[in-house]
Amino acid sequence: MSVDLSHIKTNGIGVPQVEDTRICVVMVGLPARGKSLIAGKVVRYLAWLSIHAKTFNVGSYRRADTPSPTADFFSKGNKEGEKMRQAAAEAAVSDMLRWFRKDKGIVAVLDATNSSKARRRWVAERCREQDIHTIYVESKCDNEEIIMANILEVKTTSPDYKGQDPEAAALDFRNRIKNYENVYETIDEDEKDLTYVKLIDVGSQVIINQIQDYLQSRVVYYLMNLHIRPRSIWLSRHGESEFNLDGRIGGDALLSERGELYARKLPELVASSVKDGQKLTIWTSTLKRTIATARFLAASSKGYDKLEWKALDELDSGVCDGLTYQEIADQYPEDFKARDDDKYNYRYRGGESYRDVVIRLEPIIMELERSENIIIVTHQAVLRCIYAYYMNVPQEQSPWMEVPLHTLIKLTPRAYGTEEQRFKANIPAVSTFRSKGSTAKHQ
Amino acid sequence: MSVDLSHIKTNGIGVPQVEDTRICVVMVGLPARGKSLIAGKVVRYLAWLSIHAKTFNVGSYRRADTPSPTADFFSKGNKEGEKMRQAAAEAAVSDMLRWFRKDKGIVAVLDATNSSKARRRWVAERCREQDIHTIYVESKCDNEEIIMANILEVKTTSPDYKGQDPEAAALDFRNRIKNYENVYETIDEDEKDLTYVKLIDVGSQVIINQIQDYLQSRVVYYLMNLHIRPRSIWLSRHGESEFNLDGRIGGDALLSERGELYARKLPELVASSVKDGQKLTIWTSTLKRTIATARFLAASSKGYDKLEWKALDELDSGVCDGLTYQEIADQYPEDFKARDDDKYNYRYRGGESYRDVVIRLEPIIMELERSENIIIVTHQAVLRCIYAYYMNVPQEQSPWMEVPLHTLIKLTPRAYGTEEQRFKANIPAVSTFRSKGSTAKHQ
Repeated sequence: MSVDLSHIKTNGIGVPQVEDTRICVVMVGLPARGKSLIAGKVVRYLAWLSIHAKTFNVGSYRRADTPSPTADFFSKGNKEGEKMRQAAAEAAVSDMLRWFRKDKGIVAVLDATNSSKARRRWVAERCREQDIHTIYVESKCDNEEIIMANILEVKTTSPDYKGQDPEAAALDFRNRIKNYENVYETIDEDEKDLTYVKLIDVGSQVIINQIQDYLQSRVVYYLMNLHIRPRSIWLSRHGESEFNLDGRIGGDALLSERGELYARKLPELVASSVKDGQKLTIWTSTLKRTIATARFLAASSKGYDKLEWKALDELDSGVCDGLTYQEIADQYPEDFKARDDDKYNYRYRGGESYRDVVIRLEPIIMELERSENIIIVTHQAVLRCIYAYYMNVPQEQSPWMEVPLHTLIKLTPRAYGTEEQRFKANIPAVSTFRSKGSTAKHQ
Repeated sequence: MSVDLSHIKTNGIGVPQVEDTRICVVMVGLPARGKSLIAGKVVRYLAWLSIHAKTFNVGSYRRADTPSPTADFFSKGNKEGEKMRQAAAEAAVSDMLRWFRKDKGIVAVLDATNSSKARRRWVAERCREQDIHTIYVESKCDNEEIIMANILEVKTTSPDYKGQDPEAAALDFRNRIKNYENVYETIDEDEKDLTYVKLIDVGSQVIINQIQDYLQSRVVYYLMNLHIRPRSIWLSRHGESEFNLDGRIGGDALLSERGELYARKLPELVASSVKDGQKLTIWTSTLKRTIATARFLAASSKGYDKLEWKALDELDSGVCDGLTYQEIADQYPEDFKARDDDKYNYRYRGGESYRDVVIRLEPIIMELERSENIIIVTHQAVLRCIYAYYMNVPQEQSPWMEVPLHTLIKLTPRAYGTEEQRFKANIPAVSTFRSKGSTAKHQ
């Protein structure tokens, strides 16, 4: 029996490998407008969909020479500061162009204020020389509340203010913004020939100009769905199921007694990690074990809404559904080995691969980006894929991650990465983790 | 052996069945701005993705009373005309609201000029009473060339000018537009609380305001990718293959001798149906038989670009790949029957259903909408799905359509439907069409 992997489909957004589809996403906007957050998200999203992408942050080039600049460094009159900032932009763009050439990059994100029309034209010209399309993404926001939240975020997490007094840092940062405001030019009529997206007040209005190709339109669609309001995502597997006890995969089994205990404890576990007034929405799969796990949480006095998604169902193990790993190794030895060799791409006969699951999760990710506080009760493989998106886990690693039962994971996106907290229910459960080569029922 | 269809996934855009996601898409724009074309397309696209959608065209309600109005009927001073037009809008909106209630509609498109702010508010209020969200889609276009092309289109196809002299019709229609221009109010700042999309000059700029939910964002993404420039799509199956001769499905066989003849004749067949100066792009699957079929066309002096898409590969017949229908009926009798009972939803063991193919074709459709003249050389099931999208074929019928070998199909989208032409190569080929219940090798 030979294992044929040739039928594996391309990635979810179905982009054919056309040599000349290379894009530089040029961020535009004053400080504290969520640019780095947006840049980081775009790169993560594309990487998750197997599109080679990278951020080039001009600030980190400037920081090599000037690690902790004061606001004065960014004022219009400061010739020295201006020169060094231009040098940093040059260095970032040169590295970026080298990355496109040498590393066969597809999408680069140039993360900087790019606040003048002249600077934006300069980037366009440098890219055009190498046949790279530019798309400008301006985050324009006059909402004081959002800006202050971002300033608060920056003063606690920005490398520019490492080890400094938070109050002094916030003050200095507000002065830096003022210096930028003096020279800031928003994208307007003069730049109608450019491809651009203006995100106004966190996507409440979006202006899209001259979108040229499919990959650009996907990036724009993703940006349309983003918001930069603070929020968290909670992830939990279902409680231990009867199939888990037997070491069987797939199926639609009910919860074990201990799984039932976890379901009863979940409202308390969630409550301990939710801030006052935060309203959650519960998402489950359509399988019994996730619905049962979420039912006490759904029935709690908090009045949380609940949604069942077919797309959150467990990875379909096809002909292996309901088998133990030992039975799979016995009945389909070549498949068992092929899966160990390339777990991300291996598609079960009549079922799915991790890559397939990522494809069907794409609308879930898009909807998560649109949403605020969501708790997802789902399955091991699906949770791994969602977790990989938020935590930027490479494809080779994500199918091998340990995600224990009876544990609530809280993810909070920040400007400089996603924060993770884990809450254990202290209810025993079998381990469903299987290391490479193992056919053990439980480890 | 039991046939389990329970693992069939929901539709491609993964919208969970939330009771209150109901949308009224309200078209806005002067005549000859492609409104009906856009309305028709949105409905077709959603129906193709299994989302219940319908257009309500105010003009056709008005036509019941006033079949062939002159431009004067639409002038501001014409009280009688104004009254009748208001009555037509009332009737259309009432029918639409009834459709949401009785037919469990999900997305309605109200196709009319809706040219005043007052009219738009009135629609919003009528919908709000029934908890239906409104999204306004304005097509704003000052490009004379595009408007004239649309006028030309309308005077030859609009029911308002049936049987009339084309020149007189065009003149009258231009006067009708002038009458509308006098009262037309574009969507502006006053309407910032509404959800709207402004498509400016055929999508060269798009302004998106206050998008609320996932289904809205999908509709917007689709609209972003539309254009209303005239163009055609050519569809062809690969030439007869060696598997076709044997009556085997799937596989990656080479062309038969007659299939090879078709490949050689294809450039001539295409040339006879292409207008002077039309530049085509060739899309094939990644399978040998489509690449071989397109190779002479790709090598012709026309300099057509060529792209291979994995998403255009034939429906994956899983364990049945390479079998004849007789062998399938013998080895998997229950599957054979289940497929005949519901061919659209039946998923081959280890393979795909038509519904699965539609899901993976969604990016192809999106890219087709972005493109101009494309010729697609693909496979029977894939061609059926693409054809069903353009020709609005219901899901129950599309898997049973006859799409003969060695025939070129040219589809030309028009404001009032898609025009179809078929060009036969007059090269004999087996018929791969199989009627319900039949296991015949060829019919």
